[in-house]
Amino acid sequence: MTDPHAQGNALAVLGLLAHTELASFSRLAADAVAAPALDQRLELSRMAAMAMGRLELVDSRVTDLGSGLQAAMGPFAGALVDLDARTAPSTWTERLLNAYVGYGVVDDFCRVVAGPLDPTTRDLVDEVLADDGHAGLVVETLAGAGTRDGTLASRLALWGRRLVGESLGAVQRLLADHPALRDLLVQAQGSGGVPGDAQQRLFSTLTAEHSRRMERLGLTP
Amino acid sequence: MTDPHAQGNALAVLGLLAHTELASFSRLAADAVAAPALDQRLELSRMAAMAMGRLELVDSRVTDLGSGLQAAMGPFAGALVDLDARTAPSTWTERLLNAYVGYGVVDDFCRVVAGPLDPTTRDLVDEVLADDGHAGLVVETLAGAGTRDGTLASRLALWGRRLVGESLGAVQRLLADHPALRDLLVQAQGSGGVPGDAQQRLFSTLTAEHSRRMERLGLTP
Repeated sequence: MTDPHAQGNALAVLGLLAHTELASFSRLAADAVAAPALDQRLELSRMAAMAMGRLELVDSRVTDLGSGLQAAMGPFAGALVDLDARTAPSTWTERLLNAYVGYGVVDDFCRVVAGPLDPTTRDLVDEVLADDGHAGLVVETLAGAGTRDGTLASRLALWGRRLVGESLGAVQRLLADHPALRDLLVQAQGSGGVPGDAQQRLFSTLTAEHSRRMERLGLTP
Repeated sequence: MTDPHAQGNALAVLGLLAHTELASFSRLAADAVAAPALDQRLELSRMAAMAMGRLELVDSRVTDLGSGLQAAMGPFAGALVDLDARTAPSTWTERLLNAYVGYGVVDDFCRVVAGPLDPTTRDLVDEVLADDGHAGLVVETLAGAGTRDGTLASRLALWGRRLVGESLGAVQRLLADHPALRDLLVQAQGSGGVPGDAQQRLFSTLTAEHSRRMERLGLTP
């Protein structure tokens, strides 16, 4: 890829994605320590290690594009800190919902803005994001808890709405701070639209995907 | 391996080793979050993921021996919690020394008691433990800090002595609680000795290995 503009855009998406994986790693590792039983601690620790595996995939593509992982991640330092602070879980099931829904909205956003990138980078982004959510025990625990306990199910549904609201806020800040991401969003949705429209359509898409994840857990979106 | 006694001993060492790797993972992941810079956060996160990789190696051997990871780890639950509580670092450099010296003493103990096991398990234990310590940045930071700052060097030397003291205490408790480990220790050091002697000789070996690690960092053992 010799177009420096396209390359800058690709590195922006990869930098954000790398940051998401590193943040997932740290969050899942902290969840693992809080786990009430060994099987959940093992599963969450393994999920954390898988996030690092995905980070290595991103790293190799960043290197192929002639940059370095730290340089690509730098502009996104702190991007998810605010989101984490606003979505700190207060119970174990909320924690599990964070682990499962995770940075799902941000991940979906990465997938959208990766659309107009070169095919190799786009495929890499899809591969990294497809690897998510092999969380059998987490899904079982949450789905089971929701079925058995109506009060818990409503509390988790409320927590899910909090998660999606804060995540959309984080995406809004990412778009405001990173012209490359705005540029890619407009490209992804076809030219001709005004930026405000593009963002509105994006938010509908991201909300719909989040609802599907909640429904898979048997929870009201 | 058809001797149930030998198999129980092998599973004891593997269970302890698995626990050590899981605890290392959690500790390194927490260190990574506390890292002052992105490069250190990445390196510590990668070291954490490598601990999970080693845990998977242990898991596969446990499965080959006809047991399960959780069953093997169960008896050692909480074995390192007390050690962690007694060696909670209060500064970033102390944290790095914990990350480097880590469960070094416990690792060396695993190596000793693995000596009399079947060759496949013994080789696996050696392989898992040999993978440790590829911590370029950590070693550089610590060795550099010790060279530049005499006061820091003495503080770290003191911290190192604290770490080895508490680790030897943990090994003593492991021996007291697990007959299989006592049995293996006596086998490892040859028959004829009284158990008290075996432990004294073990402690000399473990202390000497710890001193070598400190010296590699340029710190007074």
